[in-house]
Amino acid sequence: MSNEKINLKEKLSLFDEHWTPKIIAELNGQQLRLAKVKGEFVWHDHTEQDELFLVLKGSLTIKMHDRDVHLNEGELFIVPKGVEHKPVAEEECHVLLLEPGDIAHTGDVKSELTIEEPEWI
Amino acid sequence: MSNEKINLKEKLSLFDEHWTPKIIAELNGQQLRLAKVKGEFVWHDHTEQDELFLVLKGSLTIKMHDRDVHLNEGELFIVPKGVEHKPVAEEECHVLLLEPGDIAHTGDVKSELTIEEPEWI
Repeated sequence: MSNEKINLKEKLSLFDEHWTPKIIAELNGQQLRLAKVKGEFVWHDHTEQDELFLVLKGSLTIKMHDRDVHLNEGELFIVPKGVEHKPVAEEECHVLLLEPGDIAHTGDVKSELTIEEPEWI
Repeated sequence: MSNEKINLKEKLSLFDEHWTPKIIAELNGQQLRLAKVKGEFVWHDHTEQDELFLVLKGSLTIKMHDRDVHLNEGELFIVPKGVEHKPVAEEECHVLLLEPGDIAHTGDVKSELTIEEPEWI
């Protein structure tokens, strides 16, 4: 857990890579992560946990098997646990994520995009 | 838990009262709440849970006994569990809160500002 205040823009300026969420804070067993995304992620789910996406810049589509949810800046969506989803962004998009600290961002799916240990910034 | 996407500005347009957090979503036993605040809140703490404040508009000071933290738009702070704090805003400020669903916003302190059952919007 960070003891200092966190400026989201400042944290976002610290990295450029896509699909590599960075941990910025922990609270109550959850982690707040920031990600820059562009292109297509992999289909995956998180069996035990809900996952929150809040778009800070740009827009993001969360594909699910029964529907797509389109998020613009200032919009959030919670993917319920167990629901397979695939985030897609045509242009670079900045996202704030909230998810339990012990889950991989690709769920049980291992892909070349999987990062075993997200980094703190 | 909401099954739809949530637009923060739209939700903020639904109420005007100060210091009356509204629940907008639930995930993993936590609640996301929106609040409009102005003036001084009461000193209180949450014994078992950390509390996140993310400023969406305006600025907010979180007074603690050893220091004050000043937050502007796009800045967040986590008040660790057990730490007494008192939010203060000179001008109206809009805040996104994340906290476990079972805590009162004034902790164990009962005041005229205490709301027993925050409302969903």
